[in-house]
Amino acid sequence: MTVSQYLILRLKEIGIDDLFSVPGDFNLVFLDRVQDSGLINLIGDCNELNASYAADGYARVKGVGAIITTFGVGELSAVNGIAGSYSEMVPVVKITGTPNTKSQASGALLHHTLGNGDFRAFQKMFSHITVTNTTLLPQNAAAEIDRVLTECIQKVRPVYISLPTDVVDAEITVDMKPLNLALPANPEKTEAACVREIVNAVAKAKKPIIVADACAIRHHCEKELLELIEKTGLPYYTTPMGKAVIGEDHPQFRGIYVGSLSSPRVKEEVEGADLILSVGGLKSDFNTGSFSYRMDAEKTVEIHSDYTDVFYGTYKAVGMKYLLPKLAAAIPKRKFKRLRTQVELPKIDMKAMVPQAWFWNRMGKFFKPNDIVLAETGTSVFGCLNSHMPEGATFISQILWGSIGYTVGGCLGAAVAGQERRVILFVGDGSFQLTCQEVSVMIRLGLRPIIFLLNNNGYTIERLIHGVKRTYNDIDNWDFSKTLDYFGGAAGQDKIGFQGRASTAGEFEQVLKKVESHADKINFVEVMMDWLDAPENLVKQAEASAALNRS
Amino acid sequence: MTVSQYLILRLKEIGIDDLFSVPGDFNLVFLDRVQDSGLINLIGDCNELNASYAADGYARVKGVGAIITTFGVGELSAVNGIAGSYSEMVPVVKITGTPNTKSQASGALLHHTLGNGDFRAFQKMFSHITVTNTTLLPQNAAAEIDRVLTECIQKVRPVYISLPTDVVDAEITVDMKPLNLALPANPEKTEAACVREIVNAVAKAKKPIIVADACAIRHHCEKELLELIEKTGLPYYTTPMGKAVIGEDHPQFRGIYVGSLSSPRVKEEVEGADLILSVGGLKSDFNTGSFSYRMDAEKTVEIHSDYTDVFYGTYKAVGMKYLLPKLAAAIPKRKFKRLRTQVELPKIDMKAMVPQAWFWNRMGKFFKPNDIVLAETGTSVFGCLNSHMPEGATFISQILWGSIGYTVGGCLGAAVAGQERRVILFVGDGSFQLTCQEVSVMIRLGLRPIIFLLNNNGYTIERLIHGVKRTYNDIDNWDFSKTLDYFGGAAGQDKIGFQGRASTAGEFEQVLKKVESHADKINFVEVMMDWLDAPENLVKQAEASAALNRS
Repeated sequence: MTVSQYLILRLKEIGIDDLFSVPGDFNLVFLDRVQDSGLINLIGDCNELNASYAADGYARVKGVGAIITTFGVGELSAVNGIAGSYSEMVPVVKITGTPNTKSQASGALLHHTLGNGDFRAFQKMFSHITVTNTTLLPQNAAAEIDRVLTECIQKVRPVYISLPTDVVDAEITVDMKPLNLALPANPEKTEAACVREIVNAVAKAKKPIIVADACAIRHHCEKELLELIEKTGLPYYTTPMGKAVIGEDHPQFRGIYVGSLSSPRVKEEVEGADLILSVGGLKSDFNTGSFSYRMDAEKTVEIHSDYTDVFYGTYKAVGMKYLLPKLAAAIPKRKFKRLRTQVELPKIDMKAMVPQAWFWNRMGKFFKPNDIVLAETGTSVFGCLNSHMPEGATFISQILWGSIGYTVGGCLGAAVAGQERRVILFVGDGSFQLTCQEVSVMIRLGLRPIIFLLNNNGYTIERLIHGVKRTYNDIDNWDFSKTLDYFGGAAGQDKIGFQGRASTAGEFEQVLKKVESHADKINFVEVMMDWLDAPENLVKQAEASAALNRS
Repeated sequence: MTVSQYLILRLKEIGIDDLFSVPGDFNLVFLDRVQDSGLINLIGDCNELNASYAADGYARVKGVGAIITTFGVGELSAVNGIAGSYSEMVPVVKITGTPNTKSQASGALLHHTLGNGDFRAFQKMFSHITVTNTTLLPQNAAAEIDRVLTECIQKVRPVYISLPTDVVDAEITVDMKPLNLALPANPEKTEAACVREIVNAVAKAKKPIIVADACAIRHHCEKELLELIEKTGLPYYTTPMGKAVIGEDHPQFRGIYVGSLSSPRVKEEVEGADLILSVGGLKSDFNTGSFSYRMDAEKTVEIHSDYTDVFYGTYKAVGMKYLLPKLAAAIPKRKFKRLRTQVELPKIDMKAMVPQAWFWNRMGKFFKPNDIVLAETGTSVFGCLNSHMPEGATFISQILWGSIGYTVGGCLGAAVAGQERRVILFVGDGSFQLTCQEVSVMIRLGLRPIIFLLNNNGYTIERLIHGVKRTYNDIDNWDFSKTLDYFGGAAGQDKIGFQGRASTAGEFEQVLKKVESHADKINFVEVMMDWLDAPENLVKQAEASAALNRS
């Protein structure tokens, strides 16, 4: 077997059916091996940043993603995307085709190098934003591939693999057994003590609740969490990063908690609870209403992926994957009270511009079970937190890393990963400009996302933080409603569904019907919005961010 | 004075009249200070990679460039561009607006961080691709700004400045004197001995020549080189990276030397010389015909920016800036023989597609003195090496770093830096897809570049290296001839000159006339070319690269 054959088999085994790529002369032979394998579909992206975003979006739907670029020029354009996967805990395999080992050993002055003979600099740079990295050589390839892919899956974070051109076809002898990707068991006695203490705490509590956060999604504990919720009957809330971990139709779901940015009812309920089971908490600024959450240690059980805190005590190595089912079995069921709040759309003037306060509730009614919804950093993500997510829906955003432009690449990846699902993207005019070209790949592949471009004439989130009328927050007004025509070209015409602009709420309603009648093709809707209209939670968050920058 | 005022004054002093930027919440206040200073023009880019390319292109025309982004998400998208500036030796000041010092000290879980409290990771990553870096604090700001900007200019390579939000307006007390940017003098006696030995060697030589390379341009020694050439009467050649260091009309210019890829006459002349004065040599693969150059140490004087080798001996710290004038004064003048070769355009079928073998000679006749010509890595740069560059022309390409897409951002920067000059860009359809959006900034600013998009239906340079018919070398055929309409939108219409497609050589000739009649606006020409037609030197280089990858 060759190194490339082994790598392809292992990538397939962990769940990589599609590999995002930009060709370059140091990776071309490996691309041949991928295409000829018939095991993994090779997808060419317009640039490496977009490819890294696509691999991240793919991983959020399918559990793991992968990207291959060339050395130096290619991989360095993917740095931001991989850093985002690291920050947001998304398992992505970053493969770089590197110069042959002889050139590397001699420090040859090759193109795509820094010109100083240092062939290790880029791998060192990636070491800050990956959990592990390796250079494949014939003598270590099989063991190293197994090691880094296992870490990628278990730690749900990116890894880096350097594949020199002369190693691609090197022969290796291997005894290939299935990878063991399962997490190690929790320590038995520690876990048992932890369960006892939590069960006691719940028994004593009058108002116990569950708050589900990012890591419950990232560590794939949705089923375990659902079981815990249903077997205990406890009411549950999510954070922004935990949104849609379970469909928001669930009778025990009561809302999104974001500290002082929460709705008054949710804030009162969460802060009035006498016991909080926090599952997979991630307390970043935008996830906590700028650290305004109130979840004091003396009433909080923090269940993480690799440890659990019960109030002030820590149970080392007791992780949520195995702990949640035991809690579900041990905590007696309580009766719950279903929240009967039917979202009413505010009455608006259908001849006026689409208002933010209406739009996001309207979209909640547009969503269907199993939709994949991506919301770009800025107006879109804050707004979309107010949209109702039905059962099976996946909500994708970058609330921690917050790299604008991410969702366009992410949408490509999500659409490739979930080809039978509907994919809906919300992106602002400012963010779209960073990564627009990836729409052409969506068209080429015949994918069917619905793209809503919210045109509010600039970087509204930044205007709210600072510089409301500053020209640096303006952006150029492209002919957005021709986006599919431009990037599709003549060959793409038969893959294009509806494209156009909605200048009023009435037009928007008409457009939604057209979009639904073109569900088999890609759709692109430019929604005109007032330049300073913004969701209320964004306005408050922006004020908090501005204050922190000044402090 | 505040830190930002001091930084702005120093940037202005070293030659920064324009600052490329993408806004982000950690840099907004500094952007205000720049705009309000009235000293430096703030230019908003579509994304950070493009901004870094623009800063590089600007620096190649104006001597130094600068870019500001936000922390994490912003700066990491600029990594490839800054690495290119490092590799290619272009002085670019990379400024990052970072979170306030209190948040950094406490390791707060802010957006745009890796979520692990490490606020230094990105600066460490940049340390691999910059000559120095700093974090500005009130107590060190003035000294550190002076230190890093001086290094940037003297070492002609990028530097990194971290500017926390709470330091921007911090007051400092300074005694501001002009920066001393001049290089230190060469050591007197070492230099004198070096001059004597070179003068003797030239006196003994029957066929001495000069070969001018990259570093003569990068270290701004064009005038010193010209003086050396004219005072000695020696014939001179350039390498690809030294192309157009002096206008190719010069009577002593005899061609481009690229080892075995040179024209037979040039190869014979250079390899038949008994003494080579190599000025600013940079012996990378694509600059030497894959290391096929023949410039043996026993007949070569290597004059570098910070040392000089005379045959096998090294004169430490004797740099070209001060050495060249002394050589010009000391070497007696010889008679030279002017090369009388008028480039004849090959006869072609004007109704057929534009052939590469004709196109580049044709463009040489299109160029005017003082044009700035950018040629993208791939077909364009190899082809453009064959185009005649008139006096005062600047040739911009990335022959060492070779990041595709560079020239679109680079073109923006060059056009901003050289507003009174004509700017001409050659870019392939594959490369254009990486960075296309920056065209919108050119339109917004009313710049007037002429963009030739060579549409040969994919990555031709890669097809020639490997995978001629592989689908990964295909790219989507956008509606390229509508590029200005799409990115200009309604507001851009009055800034658009000619845009359209030339499918035959005859059409191309017509288009050239239209372009010249719209010289006050931006022009965009899609030139249709055969998918496997390529300049002969590219075909040979691709064969050599493929062989090296296999070895």
